[in-house]
Amino acid sequence: MHKTCDVMMEKNILEENSKLARKNRDLFEEHGILAFNILGAIGSGKTTVIEKLSERLSDARVGAIAGDLAGKDDYVRFKARGIPAVAVNTGKDCHLDAHYVSHALEELPLDDLDILFIENVGNLICPVDFPLGTAASVVIVSVTEGDDMIRKHPLIFAQSDISVINKVDLAGIMEVDIGIIESDFRKINPHGKLIKTDARRGDGLEELSDALGLG
Amino acid sequence: MHKTCDVMMEKNILEENSKLARKNRDLFEEHGILAFNILGAIGSGKTTVIEKLSERLSDARVGAIAGDLAGKDDYVRFKARGIPAVAVNTGKDCHLDAHYVSHALEELPLDDLDILFIENVGNLICPVDFPLGTAASVVIVSVTEGDDMIRKHPLIFAQSDISVINKVDLAGIMEVDIGIIESDFRKINPHGKLIKTDARRGDGLEELSDALGLG
Repeated sequence: MHKTCDVMMEKNILEENSKLARKNRDLFEEHGILAFNILGAIGSGKTTVIEKLSERLSDARVGAIAGDLAGKDDYVRFKARGIPAVAVNTGKDCHLDAHYVSHALEELPLDDLDILFIENVGNLICPVDFPLGTAASVVIVSVTEGDDMIRKHPLIFAQSDISVINKVDLAGIMEVDIGIIESDFRKINPHGKLIKTDARRGDGLEELSDALGLG
Repeated sequence: MHKTCDVMMEKNILEENSKLARKNRDLFEEHGILAFNILGAIGSGKTTVIEKLSERLSDARVGAIAGDLAGKDDYVRFKARGIPAVAVNTGKDCHLDAHYVSHALEELPLDDLDILFIENVGNLICPVDFPLGTAASVVIVSVTEGDDMIRKHPLIFAQSDISVINKVDLAGIMEVDIGIIESDFRKINPHGKLIKTDARRGDGLEELSDALGLG
């Protein structure tokens, strides 16, 4: 009984998520919105990267969904910049899923958006299995997480469309060798896009914007 | 059907974990081992704190369990210091549970240990619901994670016995106000122990050691 329930539940949950992700994708297409799933551990700089990309995209209409267990910190940061945003508090859930996103979309002015950044709950583990219907996923890590983070979390770096190493300016003081991170990444995702940024200063944002097809 | 399975599964899993956690606790008591559950996001400095505590405890016999999705990085670091250790790779599981720990214990020389540090999988979310049978739990955060990490993850700071703010030497360069973190912590856990460390340099380790009852 235990085992049957377990397998059934996981299958049901992932199938349900896929169905809702397809609905989200259809909705994005219908409204001409390019949506991105932004992944990464707490403190990797997801919010700052979104803020800086939005600054660069002054001609585009950008919206955001801020996913967190609790609090509205990132939502408040987006709103302060005039970005239409929704805060999604997941309580104990360690990831957004297509269902959370579908409800958040009901609160956004979809006809007035060109680009949507969905900032997922901060960790490198749980969001992997739950596509949201976005055009692409971007995983952001910070050098402050050490040079072993890719070896410890291979799956998310294998599956994301673009990987970003942020806060490269702190590599020296953190005694982190970025070459090791790059080399680990190449083993897991030989042809994947890997971009180095110092989002606070704006370094590497042009390359990231290009990689996202935003010019 | 879906809902029934869901509720049953969660109840079964947590009950099963509690049962096994009690078994682990009995085993620790039987062998006179003081065990600690070390929690925190990736890069917060869990491994370094354990290394530095072990250095201080030169009279005690220290062992370690290193939990990660993949890889043996932390296990290798422990072994290099002569610490008996077991690597537990959880695959996709975002936390250790009492079952993982019970199997790891089979591989450790329990009669030859006084203290056991169990380094949990790196995130501030999933490990909360899964006690391991340890005497106490310690959550470690780094100032590099920003000053909003407590507001975003109140539960783990409410439930852990000791909270550590690590890498305080980087607060300036990270533009992080430690006062905000402390004030957030006090709202959630008014009487909890909060210790500031720079584990790399050893600052604050004496206070942490005292708080753990290790002298």
